Amino acid sequence: MNIESLIARRNRLLGANTPLFYDSPLHLVRGEGVWVYDNDGEKYLDCYNNVPCVGHCHPQVVDALCMQAKKLNLHTRYLHENILDYVEQLLARFDNSLDRAMLVCTGSEANDQALRIARMHTGKQGIICTNATYHGNTTAVVALSSIFGPQASVPENVRMVPWPDSYRTPDNLRGDTLASHYAAYVNDAIRDLEDKGLGLAGMLVCPLFANEGLPDEPNPYLREAIGYVRDAGGLYLADEVQAGFGRAGRWWGHEGSGLVPDIITLGKPMGAGHPLAGLVARGELIDEFLEKEGYFNTFGGNPVSSAVGLAVLKVLEEERLIENAAAVGEFILQGFRELQQKYDSIGDVRGQGLFFGIDLVSDRDKKSPDAAEAKRIVNKMRDRGVLMSKIGEHGNILKLRPPLCFSKENAEQLLSVLDEVLEGSSV
Amino acid sequence: MNIESLIARRNRLLGANTPLFYDSPLHLVRGEGVWVYDNDGEKYLDCYNNVPCVGHCHPQVVDALCMQAKKLNLHTRYLHENILDYVEQLLARFDNSLDRAMLVCTGSEANDQALRIARMHTGKQGIICTNATYHGNTTAVVALSSIFGPQASVPENVRMVPWPDSYRTPDNLRGDTLASHYAAYVNDAIRDLEDKGLGLAGMLVCPLFANEGLPDEPNPYLREAIGYVRDAGGLYLADEVQAGFGRAGRWWGHEGSGLVPDIITLGKPMGAGHPLAGLVARGELIDEFLEKEGYFNTFGGNPVSSAVGLAVLKVLEEERLIENAAAVGEFILQGFRELQQKYDSIGDVRGQGLFFGIDLVSDRDKKSPDAAEAKRIVNKMRDRGVLMSKIGEHGNILKLRPPLCFSKENAEQLLSVLDEVLEGSSV
Repeated sequence: MNIESLIARRNRLLGANTPLFYDSPLHLVRGEGVWVYDNDGEKYLDCYNNVPCVGHCHPQVVDALCMQAKKLNLHTRYLHENILDYVEQLLARFDNSLDRAMLVCTGSEANDQALRIARMHTGKQGIICTNATYHGNTTAVVALSSIFGPQASVPENVRMVPWPDSYRTPDNLRGDTLASHYAAYVNDAIRDLEDKGLGLAGMLVCPLFANEGLPDEPNPYLREAIGYVRDAGGLYLADEVQAGFGRAGRWWGHEGSGLVPDIITLGKPMGAGHPLAGLVARGELIDEFLEKEGYFNTFGGNPVSSAVGLAVLKVLEEERLIENAAAVGEFILQGFRELQQKYDSIGDVRGQGLFFGIDLVSDRDKKSPDAAEAKRIVNKMRDRGVLMSKIGEHGNILKLRPPLCFSKENAEQLLSVLDEVLEGSSV
Repeated sequence: MNIESLIARRNRLLGANTPLFYDSPLHLVRGEGVWVYDNDGEKYLDCYNNVPCVGHCHPQVVDALCMQAKKLNLHTRYLHENILDYVEQLLARFDNSLDRAMLVCTGSEANDQALRIARMHTGKQGIICTNATYHGNTTAVVALSSIFGPQASVPENVRMVPWPDSYRTPDNLRGDTLASHYAAYVNDAIRDLEDKGLGLAGMLVCPLFANEGLPDEPNPYLREAIGYVRDAGGLYLADEVQAGFGRAGRWWGHEGSGLVPDIITLGKPMGAGHPLAGLVARGELIDEFLEKEGYFNTFGGNPVSSAVGLAVLKVLEEERLIENAAAVGEFILQGFRELQQKYDSIGDVRGQGLFFGIDLVSDRDKKSPDAAEAKRIVNKMRDRGVLMSKIGEHGNILKLRPPLCFSKENAEQLLSVLDEVLEGSSV
């Protein structure tokens, strides 16, 4: 079946506004490692997909899924060792104070539960988030999301504060001054929530500010902002749905700041594509929540999902993928910086581990966001067999998050194709 | 590892208040057809689990899962035929007016999106639900749920109306009089929402009133209540997370009333244990929602989930499981009615297809709910190798929902063991 008729069927069955990548959409049918293949056998280097973190269709993950699916797949109101083995191994990778977990199916569910727990625990309603992010798609978390689809209206119990932009920042602030400039908005938001009688339940934030555009120096900001949050009795809710499981070249994004969150939400790469998500938290928060409000998730933490989660942890360690993310990530970042020297359209290059943002501008001095160029490059790269996307409040930041098994050779291909495409646009 | 140490690990890792079935919890390790097996090799007849609708670990479903998981598991912003084939086959089983679908991972997500769509489309906030139900666990849908865990407080945009109880009903009302009695509460709730300036977005209801206790004659009530809802410009949101996929001996629960809902939410049995859920709706509702608010779900409708969904539909038809549910269901209902003649503790027996509620009472004339007896029977049945649970606002209704491949022989075992256990309690 050709692309046009697939699109026609899709429009009819799912709706014409269902999101689809690229001007010329891809019909992918197979994946292996860092590669995906379309229906014509064309091969693409995947520099976008963080979900298959251990590589597409990793045999150990697939085997774990199939073996358990043949035996038993049932909810967790019966005893099963898989969920216990998985949660034990998961918690061992966090600070000791985070000693309980709750397993769900999607990052949206995890963030929604984190809000419920924070509001229950504090007895307050106010949540602070940034003004250029996404935390999921349930009613409660979509209210904290402004970059995909227009925001109808911000509910009265939500405050969106400017994200700590290290590039388009007033007076070229850096370091502690930058941090204080942005953290002041958090302090103001807390005062406002208190003045309105709502009070502060917590601040939900990705510790890398991934959707915002991966700013440099997020950590001094986080320390100051979360300081205000905690002084006001609020919780630090770290959304590690993108930042977690080695993406930043370390196990968790929040480790960069030295702060230990009260609740950490997990998702996307957790099951390498299988719908597995969850949260870890200080035990008393989960205990109090289960006692006061009760919680059960039919599919969350079932024996199959837990087997998959265990396999993902095992592969991440056995194949030393987090070390790989740090090393190859550094190599790529260096390469991007060299391209920045060569092309004026690259205003800024930012990244941690195997997560990158390339901020494209039409004028370097004015730092004018160039969304059209970002769109052009994403499509040209696709035509040359390299998959990436774009992000940020202006849609002008190239977003790259390859599987963590991305090699130096893969990196060289990415850099060389990007060089050609940028070259093409500068002539 | 013994039961006690599993429980201790579970309390430590997940929290002591995590729900667990039975006074003597089960450590299940294997499932096949209508049977599950514990770690000691003991065999249990599963009369509770609706999720493995085609039977535990059905080979065709497991094969579909494994074959696709080996090939590709990726989000739906690339083209893939599985989601199109699945949605096409799914929609073919609904009224023609329901011509688009949205795939998500859990029933909670499906119901949450249904609320978002209804509120977006009507521009109103009010949602009506019953006062003894459960629609999921996100912030927005837990506000409509009152039977699992205490309800902190009902938000101002929610109205809970008395469910159409056909057993403990004032003046032993029946038929249209019963319907009008309960539907009047819906009309009142609409007036109140309008008076408060919130208006009506819709009514979310399980067409079988499954959590409420499966009342007789839900359909005259639904016709009258939904008539009020539609007159006020609200949408009929049918929660088929439990009622759908043949449970009631027909494809969908809502077909009983002859009303076509505006949105139907699906979940639990949809993927036979794999986290697959979704909603079907009139196309213009989904189109408008995607255009105005945007929606994307990372795991929803991925090639693996869609392959599983396709396999479930295929098995349901090839093995004629819905016809089986109707026939075996009728046989069981008859058997329960005979037990009712024999035991005074059975106040009422209700059911549709392979979904049953046995309402236990300590006094037949007063219809006094007997939650203690329900608990005792559920535990005794487990000890004799038959799994069931209890439900309803008083916790006194035995709840049975076996896999749809439940045979007449299985039914005879269920009836005979239940007879023994009831006999034991009457001496």
